[in-house]
Amino acid sequence: MSRVYNFSAGPACLPVEVLQKAQEQMLDYQGTGMSVMEMSHRSKAYEEIIGAAESNLRKLMNIPENYKVLFLQGGASLQFAMVPMNLLSKHKKAHYVNTGLWSKKAIKEAKRFGEVNVAASSEDQTFSYIPKLSADMFTPDADYVHITTNNTIYGTKFKEIPETNGIPLVTDMSSCILSEEVDVSKYGIIYAGAQKNIGPAGLTIVIIRDDLIGNVAEIPTMLDYKTHADAGSMFNTPPTYAIYIAGLVFEWLLDLGGLGEIQKVNERKAAILYDYLDNSGFYKGTARREDRSLMNVPFVIGDPEMEKKFVAEAAAAGFVNLKGHRTVGGMRASIYNAMPVEGIEKLTAFMEAFKKNNA
Amino acid sequence: MSRVYNFSAGPACLPVEVLQKAQEQMLDYQGTGMSVMEMSHRSKAYEEIIGAAESNLRKLMNIPENYKVLFLQGGASLQFAMVPMNLLSKHKKAHYVNTGLWSKKAIKEAKRFGEVNVAASSEDQTFSYIPKLSADMFTPDADYVHITTNNTIYGTKFKEIPETNGIPLVTDMSSCILSEEVDVSKYGIIYAGAQKNIGPAGLTIVIIRDDLIGNVAEIPTMLDYKTHADAGSMFNTPPTYAIYIAGLVFEWLLDLGGLGEIQKVNERKAAILYDYLDNSGFYKGTARREDRSLMNVPFVIGDPEMEKKFVAEAAAAGFVNLKGHRTVGGMRASIYNAMPVEGIEKLTAFMEAFKKNNA
Repeated sequence: MSRVYNFSAGPACLPVEVLQKAQEQMLDYQGTGMSVMEMSHRSKAYEEIIGAAESNLRKLMNIPENYKVLFLQGGASLQFAMVPMNLLSKHKKAHYVNTGLWSKKAIKEAKRFGEVNVAASSEDQTFSYIPKLSADMFTPDADYVHITTNNTIYGTKFKEIPETNGIPLVTDMSSCILSEEVDVSKYGIIYAGAQKNIGPAGLTIVIIRDDLIGNVAEIPTMLDYKTHADAGSMFNTPPTYAIYIAGLVFEWLLDLGGLGEIQKVNERKAAILYDYLDNSGFYKGTARREDRSLMNVPFVIGDPEMEKKFVAEAAAAGFVNLKGHRTVGGMRASIYNAMPVEGIEKLTAFMEAFKKNNA
Repeated sequence: MSRVYNFSAGPACLPVEVLQKAQEQMLDYQGTGMSVMEMSHRSKAYEEIIGAAESNLRKLMNIPENYKVLFLQGGASLQFAMVPMNLLSKHKKAHYVNTGLWSKKAIKEAKRFGEVNVAASSEDQTFSYIPKLSADMFTPDADYVHITTNNTIYGTKFKEIPETNGIPLVTDMSSCILSEEVDVSKYGIIYAGAQKNIGPAGLTIVIIRDDLIGNVAEIPTMLDYKTHADAGSMFNTPPTYAIYIAGLVFEWLLDLGGLGEIQKVNERKAAILYDYLDNSGFYKGTARREDRSLMNVPFVIGDPEMEKKFVAEAAAAGFVNLKGHRTVGGMRASIYNAMPVEGIEKLTAFMEAFKKNNA
């Protein structure tokens, strides 16, 4: 067996220790005589799995008591609808910051349910930066402010949490959750699809402040946060195996020392790659320096044929999924928590060799 | 490692061959150097996995060309909303047959979106039977007729497909899909949560006739069947690993000879268990004989203390999850496709020994 370095934007690489544990436990979870996939979600063994997953996530992110953790389905894309359905309770208006394709999808969906003010946008420069925000952009006649903390396609990230004049701040953290320390108390809702830093696709985590639950009547049962909050994510069968894998990832992070420690690793990884890009004289990062993501690093050579050659030769050398998103072109290295420092060192060595052969 | 006989109603036992294959492939799927969990859903390797899953399901169920197969999330519970949202296009009215708790949940949800006529119900006798239906119950002023083919809690099943006066028939087949041959062309929609006969929880399969897609405007994007039909279930990241496991289950069924063959096995298993119940003079099945499910077999002893003892001793002997649903009491053996004949033979032997010790 030979593992590759997988730079996929998501679903993405998982810690090999997590996969090994899942492999060991596949036919018999801790003497229960069955796979976690086969367990009733109401069984004692499974209740321990989901309970430990929640409590470990709370520990990792230091989630305050007045927040619920929900294990849902449907991806961030379903949250694009659930957020406005549940939160447009008083003003029926929300402020959105448009920092990329996923923000645009969130905006489009919110417009079905109320008024949307796009308070700021970086669309004028292919979303290569984070717009400067000030609290007065967020007039108080709105039920929430929505941002996309990390922009997977464009490789940008909010470095500071915006001031929102006391309006609840909602964020899509799909591509940076668990990558660094976070002050949950600054947010009304944090939501994230699991398939980047949490676990397998098909699980969506929602962290929501209690007072934002249950303020809108007549929401379809499965789309009402209250349904899932009241039932501890067990109103219907949750994605049990994906939650189990997420739980193993949470344990792996705690064993590493928590988010402060993984943040240091992530900063080191990003520094190696960005420094190399900035000094290579061949490759060029596409995001504005001060807004660069720790997780997604888009870069170009500037010659589409050469970029195609790069992606192909990289894959042959065991560095896979480096092709950039079609809207940015070039290459993108997604370097989530599970990508080891070694993977970045080897990638930059490959890039240097490719440069020498092709510059 | 010692595997148990797992009679859980869902999530439920999976074929051991499927788990073994998943275990083997956990860290490296067919030389890709990664787990299926780590694959981009847009990668060639994953497109082959989901493509094979769909084509094998089409083969197994003999699904006509004018039906789409959708791999969705949210469980049957989300379908309780999606069905009326998408299908109440003309009359804004639907007929429902109430055969249990899950039918009631479907009815409750449909009422949010239009008029519901409960055409027949078996609630008067704790849903222990399937009401007799005739086509004239289904007046033509309705957009669809909804049934629950197999009732997991009560152990009943529609033995015949109702005549509906040409009105599209929608069914929740969560607990009997793939258990026997089915004429898909008689249905408008067949939907099923995966966690009984298909694969892991977190995957929902919808088989829908083309003409029922796209007839209602202004449905939230993720709840519109058209979104997923147009995108081949790839509008957003699907539950990739659950689909992979489902694909392994479909291969396992094809290797066994298809639904005709597993039906024979299921009929044999059910016959052994029901014959034993009927002749035991100690245990008693709770569903009406002519409406008995092939998949879920509820039974009682009639003495709650003795039943508690039975469930505990059975578990100690390796027959687990035999406790009945609280609304029926007693015991329930769910004997889905993955439960081998041997499991039923050993269970009835245990039951006979228990009877001798306690009668």
